[in-house]
Amino acid sequence: MAERLVLHEYSASGNCYKVRLTAALLGIPLERREYDIMKGETRTPEFLAVINANGRIPVLQAGDRFIPESNAACYYLAADSRLVPDDRFDHADVLRWMFWEQYSHEPNVATLRFWMHWVGLDKLTEAQRLQIPAKRAAGNAALRLMDDRLKGRDWLVGDSISLADVCLFAYTHVADESDFDLTLYPEVIRWMEQIMTLPNYLPMDS
Amino acid sequence: MAERLVLHEYSASGNCYKVRLTAALLGIPLERREYDIMKGETRTPEFLAVINANGRIPVLQAGDRFIPESNAACYYLAADSRLVPDDRFDHADVLRWMFWEQYSHEPNVATLRFWMHWVGLDKLTEAQRLQIPAKRAAGNAALRLMDDRLKGRDWLVGDSISLADVCLFAYTHVADESDFDLTLYPEVIRWMEQIMTLPNYLPMDS
Repeated sequence: MAERLVLHEYSASGNCYKVRLTAALLGIPLERREYDIMKGETRTPEFLAVINANGRIPVLQAGDRFIPESNAACYYLAADSRLVPDDRFDHADVLRWMFWEQYSHEPNVATLRFWMHWVGLDKLTEAQRLQIPAKRAAGNAALRLMDDRLKGRDWLVGDSISLADVCLFAYTHVADESDFDLTLYPEVIRWMEQIMTLPNYLPMDS
Repeated sequence: MAERLVLHEYSASGNCYKVRLTAALLGIPLERREYDIMKGETRTPEFLAVINANGRIPVLQAGDRFIPESNAACYYLAADSRLVPDDRFDHADVLRWMFWEQYSHEPNVATLRFWMHWVGLDKLTEAQRLQIPAKRAAGNAALRLMDDRLKGRDWLVGDSISLADVCLFAYTHVADESDFDLTLYPEVIRWMEQIMTLPNYLPMDS
């Protein structure tokens, strides 16, 4: 892409990492601009007016336009690449896993990580604390669904890596940080190792 | 599409209605198969083995293959239609609103409707009851974001209706059923009326 691409991000966020990993796998250069979400830097009037009225990162800036929502940003980068299948069913199936990630995986696996390591368990509200058992169960159900899906398959959709794998890898590979026991999911471990040994693989902390 | 299309659904669900509305707007015939989610009909061994291991509806069956996740099912139907823009940015922007719908709109606007009218407020767990104020606030923030976006625009993305509009219409137009005051959002009302007067518009209860 000829236009300037800037990732507005908080680099410890798996949602931001997805976008960096997509760009890395495709060899697309990205500028990076860091915001401290713990200091409210994505809720300033300037951020809300220009970058994202929803007050969240990541936002991918393409020229002078902005794409919020991590999976949409990944899609923008990968739209014409091998990470998005041409086949109509596989294309929809990649999106299916990406929507599932945002609805059934991220609010459990990622939210518990955020609550445990950023907010701190002692600082949660009562409403949040009471949600932990349900989020733990739903997070394990999500990892179980992935493990079952990956039995006898190398990738979530089709015969090669797609955005479904990239987007689900981001929070899955750090799920142990919120005390999910990934050894229960051997197919997921095999799949993660496959991604981590890809030629252009980019670790989360780089 | 030449293949047989069957929507596995619970027709009162906005997520299922999205798929029916997409098909109606595009003139695509859909067979319908109803499951009573309140009786666990999407959690039977047969359903989990064949239709969706995630135990949820809607699922779009295309021939002998299955597409879970409402927004992915809509995308499958609309992939080559006027509801999905060709322009790379607009295409990603449509997906941006669809991901936002699943992450920031549905878990608030739709979940409150489900809790109030299907589960019943008196049957909620303590963990659910304590989430109501946050879901109310987040639901209103989502409707506010849509209202702001629609100022001076007819559609969420570009100059014509897209899947972003269809997918967000489904739960927005019944938000009053969970006591959201839609009169606070006049641009949203204008936008809903525009959709409800489209030639192939299909009401939720039809």
